[in-house]
Amino acid sequence: MTADSKPLFTKVALIGIGLIGSSMAHAMRRAGLAAHISGYVRSEETRDRAKKVGFANSLHLDIAEAVRDADLVVLATPVGSYGELAKEFAPFLKQGAIVTDVGSVKTAVVRDVGPHVPEGVHFVPAHPIAGTEQSGPEAGFAELFDGRWCILTPPPGTDPAAVETMKTFWRRLGSDVEVMDPKHHDIVLAITSHVPHLIAYNIVGTADDLETVTQSEVIKYSAGGFRDFTRIAASDPTMWRDVFLNNREAVLEVLGRFSEDLSALQRAIRWGDGDALFNLFTRTRAIRRSIIDAGQDTAAPNFGRGKKPTQ
Amino acid sequence: MTADSKPLFTKVALIGIGLIGSSMAHAMRRAGLAAHISGYVRSEETRDRAKKVGFANSLHLDIAEAVRDADLVVLATPVGSYGELAKEFAPFLKQGAIVTDVGSVKTAVVRDVGPHVPEGVHFVPAHPIAGTEQSGPEAGFAELFDGRWCILTPPPGTDPAAVETMKTFWRRLGSDVEVMDPKHHDIVLAITSHVPHLIAYNIVGTADDLETVTQSEVIKYSAGGFRDFTRIAASDPTMWRDVFLNNREAVLEVLGRFSEDLSALQRAIRWGDGDALFNLFTRTRAIRRSIIDAGQDTAAPNFGRGKKPTQ
Repeated sequence: MTADSKPLFTKVALIGIGLIGSSMAHAMRRAGLAAHISGYVRSEETRDRAKKVGFANSLHLDIAEAVRDADLVVLATPVGSYGELAKEFAPFLKQGAIVTDVGSVKTAVVRDVGPHVPEGVHFVPAHPIAGTEQSGPEAGFAELFDGRWCILTPPPGTDPAAVETMKTFWRRLGSDVEVMDPKHHDIVLAITSHVPHLIAYNIVGTADDLETVTQSEVIKYSAGGFRDFTRIAASDPTMWRDVFLNNREAVLEVLGRFSEDLSALQRAIRWGDGDALFNLFTRTRAIRRSIIDAGQDTAAPNFGRGKKPTQ
Repeated sequence: MTADSKPLFTKVALIGIGLIGSSMAHAMRRAGLAAHISGYVRSEETRDRAKKVGFANSLHLDIAEAVRDADLVVLATPVGSYGELAKEFAPFLKQGAIVTDVGSVKTAVVRDVGPHVPEGVHFVPAHPIAGTEQSGPEAGFAELFDGRWCILTPPPGTDPAAVETMKTFWRRLGSDVEVMDPKHHDIVLAITSHVPHLIAYNIVGTADDLETVTQSEVIKYSAGGFRDFTRIAASDPTMWRDVFLNNREAVLEVLGRFSEDLSALQRAIRWGDGDALFNLFTRTRAIRRSIIDAGQDTAAPNFGRGKKPTQ
């Protein structure tokens, strides 16, 4: 056994077994990161689904059982539920354990979870920038975090050794790691993730409501661009509701800028200002190239779906 | 040679050899639809690029030579150039020939091209709902139209036989065909394609302009959703400028609805109305499922890019 494949933790407790939680379990197993993975499930039904997928060594309806003796406890439910869950499991945490999460917002997580973390337990919030539009334990897979970024937002005064452990953990799950201030994280994610999701949900809703175009027409002709938005707009509703409710300030700020810019484009169309349109459309191409160069997306046309070029 | 593989046309002239023009040439060759394909090129440089790709039997800097004796003439340049080009080639069209196009707007095409089409020549505007974010002759491939829709918008009084010929043509290129009123086409495409492109261009521009988030951060963390938008926002700037300038009315109408809906979402976030968010996010999932069921997109998570689930 190489140093790199030695279990980092004796027991890891996953609170939540959806896309992210189950992918973490698969990736931990792949990397040999945990000797035992326990999962907290809210109902018999969820337990059966999780059992079928078979990624946890033990599944518990009792959160105290799930976290008992765990070296690492991972909150992986919608962020709106974190505070309540942290309050529930806090009394059963082992001294020296690390509490972390995978939420897409970080200021609210520090606010909601921080106060419940007992003396002698470390708190290192985290956000893996990875996911798909699918949800539930069946959607998870070990490669989800490969080549993606994971952002850690430890509150001031966090034990540097705990932060180092979490860096190692995410690197061995396949990710690159960055440390960031929670407030800055929230504005970065507002533009790279939250507002894009909001406008995708919004355009799909607008299309559904139009009286002049039938839903069957929208579906038939969606290959013109619309279908890309529907993928994002198929993401988990509870998770995304909680993201918007818990990153209000940053989302509204970025949304204000988006709307201002859109008004300028609207005006350019109304007044036939072709140069303004052309200049923006040229500038945005360069950003796509940078994203491909940075390995954050495929260069294949249409994301590589469908047929390949003949030449 | 089966009836289905008999050339439908003796000579087809492609005016424009970008993604769509070159893909048509490849698809025509695959289906044996034309005995001879001629291409009109604007410069020696374009001719050299087109020659390298090798899809036309002859390439011409003189538009009269390109269309001479052609049974079918296809406008496949940005729609803003159609009127001028039609005026140029009109005197050289063969009696009984069909003029068509591949433009993403149709009312403006009928307005700009219609008046130049001589007596005894048929005019059947068309719009294949297919494309990628790439452009130029090198980007073309034979399968681009497979399983996609092509919309024909013949003006009132068009010879039904010419419309039938164009239906057969597009079916043999791999597409399903629909006939539609140009004005209705333009509003359908405004919601399924034009406004989605506009908001994708817009969010990428907004991201590029934010002072609080660096461009390198936007690129690094783009996997959270933003990268999907950058693909669309990498589409050909000239083509898209012309689309917006030539579908102003429908685009502004749909954009008005989009902005109204977005304001409602903004308000829901500001006032913490989780139910309004949850309800929209649930409704939009169903539309994604319908698009996949209709064969208009892949069901694979993240469009199938990156790794596959382990189970």
